[in-house]
Amino acid sequence: MMIDVVNLTEKFSLFTEQWAPRVIAQLNDYHFKIAKIQGEFIWHSHSETDEVFLVVDGSLTIHLRDGKLQLEKGELCVIPRGMEHKPSAERECQILMVEPAGTLNTGDAGGDRTVDKVEWV
Amino acid sequence: MMIDVVNLTEKFSLFTEQWAPRVIAQLNDYHFKIAKIQGEFIWHSHSETDEVFLVVDGSLTIHLRDGKLQLEKGELCVIPRGMEHKPSAERECQILMVEPAGTLNTGDAGGDRTVDKVEWV
Repeated sequence: MMIDVVNLTEKFSLFTEQWAPRVIAQLNDYHFKIAKIQGEFIWHSHSETDEVFLVVDGSLTIHLRDGKLQLEKGELCVIPRGMEHKPSAERECQILMVEPAGTLNTGDAGGDRTVDKVEWV
Repeated sequence: MMIDVVNLTEKFSLFTEQWAPRVIAQLNDYHFKIAKIQGEFIWHSHSETDEVFLVVDGSLTIHLRDGKLQLEKGELCVIPRGMEHKPSAERECQILMVEPAGTLNTGDAGGDRTVDKVEWV
């Protein structure tokens, strides 16, 4: 059988690098990506797509220009296309993101935190 | 602020009906749907789309024509478009599904277990 069962805990155990998303599943032309994050990311937006964030472990803050979202384990949100946001986490947080394959982590902002090639894990 | 933080546990607490998916989030033209399931569903496939199943609580079996997948809490799989499958769960299981809005729960099989109009919760 060619269908993988993907265990989130196991996948997170396979890497330690922060802010380095890894693909764990593909649904049509969408990727399910996981990342470990800590500290502050950069302000950016994705003009072409919405973006889902689901917290698998820890606490995630998503700063918006007019406020912020606080997500705990088992919580998710959808950042609409074009909306500027800046993820941050005081302690290391494990997140699952869903978005079209090829969506850049830094969106329209670019810069040295961009991961051009997202590997599978 | 117009962005909801969706708590999976809370959403599951809002209904008791089994095999009745509820939408909890929309990502572009995709729906994130949750369902409580127990017992056996019917054999079906979706000719137009892959389908993601993530187990939020409990144990899910997905029967395939050449075997079966066993998913526990925190595990996910992608059923490819066109592949016949039959979800089942011995005890009540909470699942999150991701697929294009409008995807029918019974796919190409139809029948009396079809939920034509999936409500938000």
